[in-house]
Amino acid sequence: MYAELKGAPAAHVLLERPWLPLCISGCQLLAKTWFGDTAYHILLTDMQCVWEERMDAAAIQSRAQELNRRLRAPVKAFFSHLCEVARPCLSGGDAQPGDEAKISLMRQEDGNISMRLKSELAGLPFYWEFHCTLCSNSLTVCSQLVRPLLLMSRLLQRQVGQLGGFLLRKDAEIQDYRENGATLSRERLQTEVFEERTHREDFIGKVRGQPHTHTHTHTHTHTHSLSLS
Amino acid sequence: MYAELKGAPAAHVLLERPWLPLCISGCQLLAKTWFGDTAYHILLTDMQCVWEERMDAAAIQSRAQELNRRLRAPVKAFFSHLCEVARPCLSGGDAQPGDEAKISLMRQEDGNISMRLKSELAGLPFYWEFHCTLCSNSLTVCSQLVRPLLLMSRLLQRQVGQLGGFLLRKDAEIQDYRENGATLSRERLQTEVFEERTHREDFIGKVRGQPHTHTHTHTHTHTHSLSLS
Repeated sequence: MYAELKGAPAAHVLLERPWLPLCISGCQLLAKTWFGDTAYHILLTDMQCVWEERMDAAAIQSRAQELNRRLRAPVKAFFSHLCEVARPCLSGGDAQPGDEAKISLMRQEDGNISMRLKSELAGLPFYWEFHCTLCSNSLTVCSQLVRPLLLMSRLLQRQVGQLGGFLLRKDAEIQDYRENGATLSRERLQTEVFEERTHREDFIGKVRGQPHTHTHTHTHTHTHSLSLS
Repeated sequence: MYAELKGAPAAHVLLERPWLPLCISGCQLLAKTWFGDTAYHILLTDMQCVWEERMDAAAIQSRAQELNRRLRAPVKAFFSHLCEVARPCLSGGDAQPGDEAKISLMRQEDGNISMRLKSELAGLPFYWEFHCTLCSNSLTVCSQLVRPLLLMSRLLQRQVGQLGGFLLRKDAEIQDYRENGATLSRERLQTEVFEERTHREDFIGKVRGQPHTHTHTHTHTHTHSLSLS
């Protein structure tokens, strides 16, 4: 895919970038961005959809010309200005670009997203538009969202198991003190025995209680498969 | 989308189905399926890609005719046979269809998946092919995978917090016994004090240690945003 775009990054570049929260025109999104020399790649998501735009030097040159009729600068010059102005707004939070610049976001009827940027370059107004279209590649969504979330869930699940194990050992220690006649100076410090099974069942109940999104894991002979029901 | 297909389910029907592990021709996948009266919808994933096929009565009739030249039955009749044979193989595990039936799976060069089914209907061989194409709708991937995984992660994270709280209370109880002079009958029962912060840092280290998939959560002013880096 990336090979189509001259100067575009290898597929793993965006994988190494963090998803950062973004708030433009009251719209809450997560964004991943890569700005190269004269190319960029943007991914946006609201966890309902994923949008993206990939632009190379030629496409950037042509859009810049279209939006800025009087622009005479080479692509490298105005692209470095674009990066300087756009990066802060796409790097998390509700940071606004510099004093002279404004960014706004519009969700279009066709489901796409456009972000308009207005700034100033060499005393003239400079316009830019990001056209992020609905991502049609399940490979991108899987690698950028599904797989990291799956890994996250597995690590958290392992952590739950580990903490459960710690609790069982604490209970064994407490039981030993009690059996040797130890008493507490303050009764309110007494804890209930941790029942791993009850706790797990309670958790599964909570997961299933969420309409349309209940999730449970499920060990299959050959694979650690996550079964999301 | 579903409106395009006569007799197809509302969008939420597959959301309520579980992802079930599937093993056909040595290929490990997760599958979600819905079989209606004369329509079906299949989703497959290997967590790298998502594939799907949606078929209505007309499409089923036409493919059945194409694959079974001598077939003269109405669509309802052979569709109920197809369900009976196909359902067990698509419902998890490496279950094979009935005695007379065989299913095989092929990953094609264009990235799509075809599953071929051969069975017997009224004494004649009956062929069927599922043509699952790469899902081009990020909305489907998000609703069927990303959002359930996100919910799962959040619930697990809450659980980790809860278990951490239990451990702190156990330590307070243990400390009280110790301060009152209690001793253990077996030294090996003694546990280390649970350090929530150290444990969390250790966990984050593990998450970050996974190349291309390190994930960390991140609280933003207005949203519980998950930031996957």
